[in-house]
Amino acid sequence: MNIKINTNFDLLSENYLFSEINKRINKYKENNKDANIIRLGIGDVTLPLGKKVIDALIKASNEMGKMETFRGYPPEYGYDFVKEAVMNYYKRFNVSLDLDSIFISDGAKSDLGNIVDIFGDNTIYIPNPVYPVYLDSNLMSGRNIKYIVGNKENNFLPLPNKEIKPNSIIYLCSPNNPTGGAYNHDELKKWVDFARENGSLIIYDSAYEAFIYDDNYPHSIYEIAGAKDCAIEICSFSKQAGFTGLRCGWTIIPFELESDNHKINKLWKRRQATKFNGVSYPVQRAAEAALSEEGILECKNNINYYMENAKLLSKLFDEKGIYYTGGKNSPYIWFKCPNGMKSWDFFDYLLENANVVGTPGAGFGTFGEGYFRITSFNTHEKTIEAIERLKKVL
Amino acid sequence: MNIKINTNFDLLSENYLFSEINKRINKYKENNKDANIIRLGIGDVTLPLGKKVIDALIKASNEMGKMETFRGYPPEYGYDFVKEAVMNYYKRFNVSLDLDSIFISDGAKSDLGNIVDIFGDNTIYIPNPVYPVYLDSNLMSGRNIKYIVGNKENNFLPLPNKEIKPNSIIYLCSPNNPTGGAYNHDELKKWVDFARENGSLIIYDSAYEAFIYDDNYPHSIYEIAGAKDCAIEICSFSKQAGFTGLRCGWTIIPFELESDNHKINKLWKRRQATKFNGVSYPVQRAAEAALSEEGILECKNNINYYMENAKLLSKLFDEKGIYYTGGKNSPYIWFKCPNGMKSWDFFDYLLENANVVGTPGAGFGTFGEGYFRITSFNTHEKTIEAIERLKKVL
Repeated sequence: MNIKINTNFDLLSENYLFSEINKRINKYKENNKDANIIRLGIGDVTLPLGKKVIDALIKASNEMGKMETFRGYPPEYGYDFVKEAVMNYYKRFNVSLDLDSIFISDGAKSDLGNIVDIFGDNTIYIPNPVYPVYLDSNLMSGRNIKYIVGNKENNFLPLPNKEIKPNSIIYLCSPNNPTGGAYNHDELKKWVDFARENGSLIIYDSAYEAFIYDDNYPHSIYEIAGAKDCAIEICSFSKQAGFTGLRCGWTIIPFELESDNHKINKLWKRRQATKFNGVSYPVQRAAEAALSEEGILECKNNINYYMENAKLLSKLFDEKGIYYTGGKNSPYIWFKCPNGMKSWDFFDYLLENANVVGTPGAGFGTFGEGYFRITSFNTHEKTIEAIERLKKVL
Repeated sequence: MNIKINTNFDLLSENYLFSEINKRINKYKENNKDANIIRLGIGDVTLPLGKKVIDALIKASNEMGKMETFRGYPPEYGYDFVKEAVMNYYKRFNVSLDLDSIFISDGAKSDLGNIVDIFGDNTIYIPNPVYPVYLDSNLMSGRNIKYIVGNKENNFLPLPNKEIKPNSIIYLCSPNNPTGGAYNHDELKKWVDFARENGSLIIYDSAYEAFIYDDNYPHSIYEIAGAKDCAIEICSFSKQAGFTGLRCGWTIIPFELESDNHKINKLWKRRQATKFNGVSYPVQRAAEAALSEEGILECKNNINYYMENAKLLSKLFDEKGIYYTGGKNSPYIWFKCPNGMKSWDFFDYLLENANVVGTPGAGFGTFGEGYFRITSFNTHEKTIEAIERLKKVL
């Protein structure tokens, strides 16, 4: 066989962050069989789905077994009942959406990866450090990529700068994975105003919006006036409703978004109709339930549980006087490794001396070097135990 | 906003086949409110899921509601329990697969669309007529596309020809959608031998394999010696197990597939890890159940039901002496429109004179003009009623 492969794949880094982590843990365990390791590296939820969601899932599953209620191919863009649930959810933030600007999918990661299909060869601006999918999916497409640097000086919440070329695509993630930093209303407005003036498109990843507790932090970029002219928003049921194992997310492409005489909404519609066939019916019913009044309350209980952990972890870093971001409107805490240690060295140090696992910041981009991410997704008991151990080694 | 869009989208046809069909039906209904329309245009299953599958779906759904059994992110390539079920299913065809050559996804359509990501700028050969996703996904990537013509002379089962350039990508669909034609062992061997000599890759869509009843028709391209050196196979639980509404499929990329010093398996692995996050856990449990001994028997009952319809429909065309393909190892019947009518004219004629809806062959490619597809996915009662009506107008 002698066909051409997509050589852009050669640009991707070989090392998968989480497989390298597991390799090191396994190696440590081999030599320390009795080690009681606590994982604060998890980016996944751990609490079970709420009753309301499970009931909907089971009811819909039963429907699939009966002639009268069986459903075949779902609509490629999602059933109206989920789109309406998303539309109503946004009313909580005083955002009014057109039903057909909402696309239901099997998760934010798929949409974030696949969205590159509809764009041409633009310059791409990506925060660094950040969730690796933005970088990898654009590398695969051979795009010209530039970084928007997050660091201690800007509290890992970079604002627009004059280096950003006009007519570009800019990725933002708020609350940010991995730094936990979230843009407040004024800061996000700066990005929206900048994009509008500069002719750029913002791809806004709001997967962690449900962790926002403070009123002056927007849950959606569309809370900012003018954002519908310059932003796509991609969100997920994963963190908000614990759907990491069920798979459901949504993407909003306002009708206002237009470039080069093309409606962006229409391009995505065509993309999804060609390369996607809709989300599993029982999952869509579960998603609808998660966004009902009762469902949201149930989900909020889980988020409160995680945020209790985040509070305890934040307290530790406050007490130790260690620089960190996040922990407030985010499940993540991002801190500076002590004594100028590098991310991976600190990973090994923590594993060996506290049997606690976290995620090296360098895995999220070059500017994450020297930093470390821990999460609030473990149980109270284990988080408290981990804090006791961290107290001794930090 | 002034970013560059993917202008290849301009090459796609504006008209969605099935939306045009619905438009014409609705218009007819407006003027004929009492018309009792029978739909033989459906490419979707209509029978409910079997008990075994529903039980698995519900059991797994309940697991997601309990702390001890909750599962978060699934593996991007599928749980081993589904991959093993697929591996064992292929043993029925005497095909032995490596576990990690199997990738579980949310459906064959997604994989067929997304697979273009991993290839460079090759010449693409696509049967005509055929399922439109192959064409559209390659048009979106700006590929050089050539057709492999299906017609009455080759019974809509084109074989390799000397025009096909070396080192190309060749799509095959068997049993074919829409023509219902299936390659027998000798014919498929010609394609495999050709691809191996010619340095080409075959992308083999076997979504309808479960409809094959004759022993000398392969269910998998890997039943042909050497196919692992030249073929990717993409299949689905949709038609075999009625999963169109649940969403699950699989792709097989043998480790043997190598080009330009790259393992194709590894490229797809990287693609899926970046732009996909695995299939819903309850759906994967349902898929596992569908491939159990009992599950396969349940599914076979449904397929037998559809094939009874196909037999009755075939009989009609035999009696009328109208040229057709399919109806034997396929749920589709593809026939020549009477009196040299064009596909869409015949659509209108059938709708108006028999209140029967089918799918115009021209919607599957230029060489489908003058042909028409009907399916066996309706109930016995409606199929029999439709046959009575067709008898009068054909």
